[in-house]
Amino acid sequence: MINIKEDKRLMPLNHSCAHLLAEAVKKIYPNAKFWVGPVIEDGFYYDIDLGDNTLTDDDLPKIEKEMKKIAKGGKKIIRHELTREEALDLFKDDPYKIDLINNMASDEVISCYTQGDFTDLCRGPHVDSTKELKHFKLLKVSGAYFKGDSKNKMLQRIYGVCYDNEEDLNKHLALLEEAKLRDHRKLGKDLGIFMFADLVGKGLPMWLPNGFILRRTLVDYITDKEIKLGYKHVMTPSLGNVELYKTSGHWDHYKEDMFPEMKLDDESYVLRPMNCPHHMMMFKNKLHSYRDLPVRIAEVANDFRYEASGALCGIERTRAFTQNDSHIFCTNEQIKDEFKGVIELILDVYKDFGFKDYSFRLSLRDKNDKEKYFGNDELWEKSEQELREVLEEFGAPYYEAEGEAAFYGPKLDVQVKSALGHDVTLSTIQLDYQLPERFELTYIDKDGSKVRPVVIHRAILGSLDRFIAFLLEETKGNLPLWLSPVGVIVIPVSSEYQNDYATYVYEQLKENGIRVELDNRNEKLGYRLREAQTRKINYILILGDKEKTDNTISYRHHGEQETTTVSLEEFIKLIKEEIIAKKR
Amino acid sequence: MINIKEDKRLMPLNHSCAHLLAEAVKKIYPNAKFWVGPVIEDGFYYDIDLGDNTLTDDDLPKIEKEMKKIAKGGKKIIRHELTREEALDLFKDDPYKIDLINNMASDEVISCYTQGDFTDLCRGPHVDSTKELKHFKLLKVSGAYFKGDSKNKMLQRIYGVCYDNEEDLNKHLALLEEAKLRDHRKLGKDLGIFMFADLVGKGLPMWLPNGFILRRTLVDYITDKEIKLGYKHVMTPSLGNVELYKTSGHWDHYKEDMFPEMKLDDESYVLRPMNCPHHMMMFKNKLHSYRDLPVRIAEVANDFRYEASGALCGIERTRAFTQNDSHIFCTNEQIKDEFKGVIELILDVYKDFGFKDYSFRLSLRDKNDKEKYFGNDELWEKSEQELREVLEEFGAPYYEAEGEAAFYGPKLDVQVKSALGHDVTLSTIQLDYQLPERFELTYIDKDGSKVRPVVIHRAILGSLDRFIAFLLEETKGNLPLWLSPVGVIVIPVSSEYQNDYATYVYEQLKENGIRVELDNRNEKLGYRLREAQTRKINYILILGDKEKTDNTISYRHHGEQETTTVSLEEFIKLIKEEIIAKKR
Repeated sequence: MINIKEDKRLMPLNHSCAHLLAEAVKKIYPNAKFWVGPVIEDGFYYDIDLGDNTLTDDDLPKIEKEMKKIAKGGKKIIRHELTREEALDLFKDDPYKIDLINNMASDEVISCYTQGDFTDLCRGPHVDSTKELKHFKLLKVSGAYFKGDSKNKMLQRIYGVCYDNEEDLNKHLALLEEAKLRDHRKLGKDLGIFMFADLVGKGLPMWLPNGFILRRTLVDYITDKEIKLGYKHVMTPSLGNVELYKTSGHWDHYKEDMFPEMKLDDESYVLRPMNCPHHMMMFKNKLHSYRDLPVRIAEVANDFRYEASGALCGIERTRAFTQNDSHIFCTNEQIKDEFKGVIELILDVYKDFGFKDYSFRLSLRDKNDKEKYFGNDELWEKSEQELREVLEEFGAPYYEAEGEAAFYGPKLDVQVKSALGHDVTLSTIQLDYQLPERFELTYIDKDGSKVRPVVIHRAILGSLDRFIAFLLEETKGNLPLWLSPVGVIVIPVSSEYQNDYATYVYEQLKENGIRVELDNRNEKLGYRLREAQTRKINYILILGDKEKTDNTISYRHHGEQETTTVSLEEFIKLIKEEIIAKKR
Repeated sequence: MINIKEDKRLMPLNHSCAHLLAEAVKKIYPNAKFWVGPVIEDGFYYDIDLGDNTLTDDDLPKIEKEMKKIAKGGKKIIRHELTREEALDLFKDDPYKIDLINNMASDEVISCYTQGDFTDLCRGPHVDSTKELKHFKLLKVSGAYFKGDSKNKMLQRIYGVCYDNEEDLNKHLALLEEAKLRDHRKLGKDLGIFMFADLVGKGLPMWLPNGFILRRTLVDYITDKEIKLGYKHVMTPSLGNVELYKTSGHWDHYKEDMFPEMKLDDESYVLRPMNCPHHMMMFKNKLHSYRDLPVRIAEVANDFRYEASGALCGIERTRAFTQNDSHIFCTNEQIKDEFKGVIELILDVYKDFGFKDYSFRLSLRDKNDKEKYFGNDELWEKSEQELREVLEEFGAPYYEAEGEAAFYGPKLDVQVKSALGHDVTLSTIQLDYQLPERFELTYIDKDGSKVRPVVIHRAILGSLDRFIAFLLEETKGNLPLWLSPVGVIVIPVSSEYQNDYATYVYEQLKENGIRVELDNRNEKLGYRLREAQTRKINYILILGDKEKTDNTISYRHHGEQETTTVSLEEFIKLIKEEIIAKKR
C-alpha cells in the first residue's frame, strides 16, 4: 500500500479532496463548522461539528454526490497569505479556526485556500483545480472528540481517499475489503479463538476453548522442536523484585513501558516485561565449565507491558502476552554456530507455516545516541561486526538499519511480508555483551580462569498472541488442519436414521486423536452445512444411507464443492498424513 | 506424630525439660539471660541471650550432658505464686523477665518454678521432679530475633524434645531423619527441579529444566484427561481490573491475601489470587441454552497470593503458583451428576499416582459467623444438604467440618495422608450459588425464561507446585518412570571402546520418545554409576564389550543391585509399557 501522506502527487490530491468534502458538507449542512482535515497514510479525514446532527455511513453517498457535482465545476484552487489580524477577522464567527490561529507559532505564515466561494484555513499544498478530483471515495464516518479529549464535544469524522486514476482507487478499495475479511479481531470472535471483557481489563485477552487448542498446538510444536535441538525449557515467575530490573538496566531504560511496581513488606515487585533477567539468574545458579556451554535456556513465558490504551489492537498488541523466548549462553567462539543454528531453526519453522516472503534486517545502534545505547563503543563495534560476518557466511540476504538496535546490543529481525503487504517482525536474534557484565556471569575456562559468556536472545514465533493474529490474517481463519481447533465435523443427513453410524465414525476419529465434532442436531442438513462452512472447519463429513450401508464416509474440504467417498480407514490415514505433513 | 503441645502427659514434661535446658545453659554460660521457652507441637525451645556468644549444633552435646547430670540429681520442681512487686523484685536484674511481667494482664496470677537453686518465671504446669526427665534430645540451634523483630537483638534458640520412654523418643528421632530425607526443598535442589533467588523474589520458584519436564508431564496428563471428559480448557490473564474482584466479592473478603493493586490510567489492576471471576466472565460472554449445560471451563492457571515471608516454604507455599482449576456451570438438576463425575475423576487420578490413604472432608459454614459467610441462609442450607446427599449416594466415607467452608459456599476437600503422617488437602470441590448471583449469570430454560446456573469450583491436583512438593516427599525423589525427568541413562563401561554402541542405543531410545541421557564422560565407571544413583535415574544401562557384541543391553533399576540383560527392542517395549501403566 502506498503511504499517501508521503506521496508527492497523492498528498495534495487528498488534501484538496478534504476541502471538497468540507464544501459539500457545508452545502448540505449550512451550520457545519470545521476543525481539522489532515492527510493520513491511507487517505484523509475531516472533523466536523454538525451541532446535534450525527452522521451514519448511510449519509455518505449524498455527500459524495454533492462532491462530484462541485468537482465537475472545475473551480480553481487559489492560495492567499494573510496576517494574523486578517485571519482572525476572516474567521471571526468560527471558534474552531480562531483556536487554530491562536495556536500557530508567531512566525508561521498563515494561508487560506479558496475554491469558488468556499475558503478554508490551510497550510496546503493543494492541486490547482477541483477538476483534478475525480477518483475518490468516502469510506466511513465515526465520532471523534474535539482535540481527542473525551471531556470535549464529539465531532463527526468523515474518512475518504482520493487517487489520480480509477484503477488505483479500485485497488485501494479492494484492499480495504480484503483487510476487513482478514481482520483478526473479527475472525478471532467468529471462530471462538479469544474474547475481551472490560471488567477483566483492557488489552488482556481471554483465550476461549478453540484459542486454547491453537495455542497448545503451537506451544507443543515449538517446545518439542527446541528440545530436540538441545534447548532446555524452564518456567520462571511472571514478576520479579525491582532490584532485578535495576541490575539488568530495564528499570533505567524501560520503566515507562512496564506495569507499576507493587510494594510488599520492605520490597518492591513488578510484572516482568521480558524474561532475560530471570534466565540470567538461572544461569548464575550454578558453576559452569566451558564444557557445559552452550547452555540454551528456553521458555514459553508470560510477559506484561504497559501499552497506552489507544495503542492496543486485538491480540496483536496487548498488555499481557506470551513469548517463545530463549537465551543462549556461549563462548565467543560459539557465537557463529549458535547464530547459524537459530537462523536454520527460523527457516525450518517458516517452511512449516508456509511463510515464503521474508527478509533479514540487521539493526545497529545509532552511534550518536549515547543516552539510549549504554556500554562501550568497542563492544558494540565487535558485536555488530560479528553479526554481519555470520550473515555473510550464511549467505542470507539482509539490509542494515541504524538506530534500531536494542539498548543492550545489535539485533537481527526477520520481517515477514503479510498478505496485506505489511512488513511484520516475527523472529528476532540479539547479541548481548552487556547483561553478562551486569549480572557478573562467568564460566570456568580450560585454564581455570573465569570468563564472561556471551548471551544470544532469540524468539522464533515471537509473541504467540501476535503470531496467532498474523496466522488468522494470513489464512483468513482457514487454519491448516494441524493447527485447526476443529478439523473434522461429522454430519448425519438425518439425525434420526444415520445417528448411530455418525456417532460410530465420530468416536473412531476421536479415538485416533483427531479434533472432531458431531453435529447430530435436529436441524436441516443445509443449515448444518452452512454453519460448518462459516466455522471454517477443514473437513465436513456427510453421512447418508449410502455411506451407512457401504461403511464409507463422504467428505468435502472447506471451500470446495466436490464430495469424495472413501472408507473410514482411508480417511483417517489421509487426515493423519495431512497433520504430519503440516499441509496448508 | 503426636501433637506434644496438646498431650496431657508430654506437655508438662517438655515444659520442664525447657527449664532443665535453661539451668544447664546457666551452669555453662553464667551470664546467660532467658526470654521465653514454650512447648510446641513437636517438642520445645528456649530463646536465650548469650551476649556475644553464638551457639552451633556442636555445642548441644555438652549442654545435653549437663542436663542429664542435673536431672539425675532428682530435684523437686516447686511452684510459687508471687505478687507483681515480688516478681519485679526477684527478677530485677533480668530485663527479659521484667518485660514479660510488665506485659502480663493485671489480674493474671504470677508464678515461678524452682528446682534446687534455679528459679524461672513460668505459668506451668510442670512435672514433679527433674528425675522424670530421662528421655530427651536437643535437636538444633538457630538464631531468633527478640520478639521476632529483625530490628531487635538476635537470640540463640535451642530446640529439643522429651518423651516418657526411650522407644517413643527414638521413633520421634527416626521420623525427623525420615523427614530430612523427604524434604522437598533439598530433593528439589539435588534433582534440579527448582531454585529460588533473592534477587528474583521471595516465594517465587524458578523451575529448572527437570522441573519443567515434570510440570509439563503433569499438565499434559490432567489436561488430556479433562478434555476427554468434556472439559473445555481455556487461558485467561494473570491479572484483572479491581472492579472484577469487587463484583466477585474477593476485594471485600480476600484483599489482604492479594498482591497490592497497580494503577494504570484511570483504572486499577491486581494480580489474581484465583480464577473464578475470569471464568464467570467467559461464561457470560455468550447466551447459553439449557441444552448447552453443563459447561465445564478448565484452566491450568497462574495465580498470585501475598503470603507472609515467614509462611513461605519451598514450593509448598509460594507467592506465585499454578492451579489445576475448573468451574462447572450447570442446572440444579445436574449438580449430583457433576459432583459424582468430579469424585470419579479424583479417584481415577489418585489411582494413577498410587494414593491410597485419603478421606473426604465436607466443609460447612459456621452458622454464627455472618461476617465471613455472606448470602442467605436458605441457599447455604440447600447447598450443604445437596453435597451430603451426593456423598451418601456415592457411598464415599466422609466427615463434616463446621466453619471450614469457603466464603461463597460449602466445599468437599480430599485429605491425603502423607508418608510422614500429615493430612494434606490435595483436591477440592466447592458448590457456589453466590458468584452466579454476583455476576448475574443466566441460561435460557426450556420455557424461554432466564435461570441462574449453579457453579461448581473444583481442583484435582490443586496447586501444581504443592502437588510436586508432595510427590517429591512421598517418593523421596524416586519419581515413577512416567513422571521422571530422566528415566534412563546410558553408560558405556569405557567411553573409548563402547562409545559408538552407547551412542546408538541412546539415539534409539530418544527416537522412541524416552527421556534418556548418555554419560560417556572420560570418568571411572564407578563414579558415573554412583552419580546416576544419586540422581535417582530410574534405569541405568551399562554397556560393555559383551553387550556390544551380542547387541543387547544390561540394565539396573534404581536402588536395586541386580543386573538384567535383554535385547534393545525388549527394553524399549518394557519402558514403554511401564510409562503407559504409570507403574511406580
